[in-house]
Amino acid sequence: MQISDLGEFPLIDRIAQIAAVEREDVIIGIGDDVAVLEPGGDQPGDEWLLAKVDSQVEGVHYLKDAISPRQLGRKALAVNLSDIAAIGGQPLYALVSLALADETEVAWVDELYRGLREEGDRYGVAVVGGNMARSIGGAFVDVFVLGRVRREHVLLRSGARPGDRVLVTGRIGDSAAGLQLLLHPGLVPDLPADEREKLLARHFTPTPRLREAAAIARLGGATAGIDLSDGLSSDVGHICERSQVGVRLWAERLPISEATHKVAAAGARTFYALALEGGEDYELCFTAPPAQAETLATAVERETGTPVAVVGEILPLDHGRLLVLPDGREVELEAKGWQHWSK
Amino acid sequence: MQISDLGEFPLIDRIAQIAAVEREDVIIGIGDDVAVLEPGGDQPGDEWLLAKVDSQVEGVHYLKDAISPRQLGRKALAVNLSDIAAIGGQPLYALVSLALADETEVAWVDELYRGLREEGDRYGVAVVGGNMARSIGGAFVDVFVLGRVRREHVLLRSGARPGDRVLVTGRIGDSAAGLQLLLHPGLVPDLPADEREKLLARHFTPTPRLREAAAIARLGGATAGIDLSDGLSSDVGHICERSQVGVRLWAERLPISEATHKVAAAGARTFYALALEGGEDYELCFTAPPAQAETLATAVERETGTPVAVVGEILPLDHGRLLVLPDGREVELEAKGWQHWSK
Repeated sequence: MQISDLGEFPLIDRIAQIAAVEREDVIIGIGDDVAVLEPGGDQPGDEWLLAKVDSQVEGVHYLKDAISPRQLGRKALAVNLSDIAAIGGQPLYALVSLALADETEVAWVDELYRGLREEGDRYGVAVVGGNMARSIGGAFVDVFVLGRVRREHVLLRSGARPGDRVLVTGRIGDSAAGLQLLLHPGLVPDLPADEREKLLARHFTPTPRLREAAAIARLGGATAGIDLSDGLSSDVGHICERSQVGVRLWAERLPISEATHKVAAAGARTFYALALEGGEDYELCFTAPPAQAETLATAVERETGTPVAVVGEILPLDHGRLLVLPDGREVELEAKGWQHWSK
Repeated sequence: MQISDLGEFPLIDRIAQIAAVEREDVIIGIGDDVAVLEPGGDQPGDEWLLAKVDSQVEGVHYLKDAISPRQLGRKALAVNLSDIAAIGGQPLYALVSLALADETEVAWVDELYRGLREEGDRYGVAVVGGNMARSIGGAFVDVFVLGRVRREHVLLRSGARPGDRVLVTGRIGDSAAGLQLLLHPGLVPDLPADEREKLLARHFTPTPRLREAAAIARLGGATAGIDLSDGLSSDVGHICERSQVGVRLWAERLPISEATHKVAAAGARTFYALALEGGEDYELCFTAPPAQAETLATAVERETGTPVAVVGEILPLDHGRLLVLPDGREVELEAKGWQHWSK
């Protein structure tokens, strides 16, 4: 069997079984977004170490002519910082492994590193090492990030309980809308230039929600968290899997910008399909008990300026995963987010 | 200018300048083999954190049909452990980032992970995370290793002083000889099968010298260290650069196996060219003051069973880098080890 027949997530489950170890110093190991580690040995502190890797592959994650190397550098780091944020942590260091074709311009590599530096400086992350290799195909940009987290701030996928509300920071669907505009520049001819630029920026240079995550951690009450990289329908599905719960999302409550509504309409897609399946928003999705959800949302919004919306509720496992459409009908929430080798 | 015109090491120097930061918690940052970090904040312990990444690119580092996925998994981890060893550290965790072509067999990925697991188990390293992506070219295997080191055990490239002896563990040139046999199976027709297997094994499944490095650290006295990945002529050159010294190596004292002598002769190369330029030995090269060098070599050998040879001496910087040939002539030691985009 080929991996394209199996699919990404089943493949990850499979290798996680081969690699899994039981060790006291491995709090969260293979199979999750971020590894949580306690290397300190016999002197456990009140902080854990975080480690995470994510890659940008030319021709798969990006097209060389469509994204500037500086944007790519920023994005390659940002997508990792987003995961560190989602777990409640603080990023500290990055290592960058590159495989580059012989004919790559030195200026391109310079700019890639300027982007990495720029994004790192913004969030206190130092690039402390890396590796350089030849590629006989396109470029491969692999970024490893190390961070730390206070033990009481750790927000895992596994903590959601029936009744909890599902919350989302910022707007979702903008990145997917930006990608649509990139692929079909004439899609919405009357879209104002500033709205177009904003959607493209959301696609090219996502903002890791570190401040928002820090506020959520400090305010307390959240029960589970994940960052929105694949698309809400898939990512909330990861929370459901790990927490052994179901979920109901309300399409009407999804926080979607006017510009994204226009792109969805022009492309003959529903706004909620774009928001649920588009991916690459790098917003946070988290859960909190009903009594605290609204208060928490308001507090995070006041502290960071980023809107927080309640978009759904956690259900018992046997209720499944549901989506309430704008017309009130309830349908199955299919995990149609991004997946390598999806069937 | 293209990176192939610039060369790997000048490119690394260049990006190190863009990325370099001054931070108290970054002991050794970008530009070295291993990052040395102190993430503990205000409670510095007696240990530092180590981080390292190295990759295996299909068609560049290996040919898919020539190495089994299990061997590749072992090797991809081993080359990283070798760097952790060279700095005097203990490896703890690995993260594995893969980019794979759609048609990759699931069984191939399983075996790769079994190799990673096997090598990890041998040295107490847990695979705790990773990433999976599509590749539109060949496979890309990126391994990131975290470890720790006692502060007093850290062995950097920068500590060598004129007069110090240069020492090498094990045998060098075997991996390059193994590669020659792989590329030209008929090269030494009368080479006994067990010798052939041994050279191939040295190429496919190098042994990271963690026990030897731990012994060197514990015994004390060593002044600088590096692992032999590119080839002794290049790797000792890195020590010279960072320590601002010269070096004299004696070709006759290089520890070279009988089998490698035969392969060199059959391929019309001198034995010392193969040993100095071949690379991928993953032995340790370290320096120690003349009064301690022989004692240290003997002690490490007794403790680990691995031979240790004195192969040269550190000179003042203005003496340059020299090689004494078997006939007594002294020539310039050229850094002809492996380098991506070497001119």
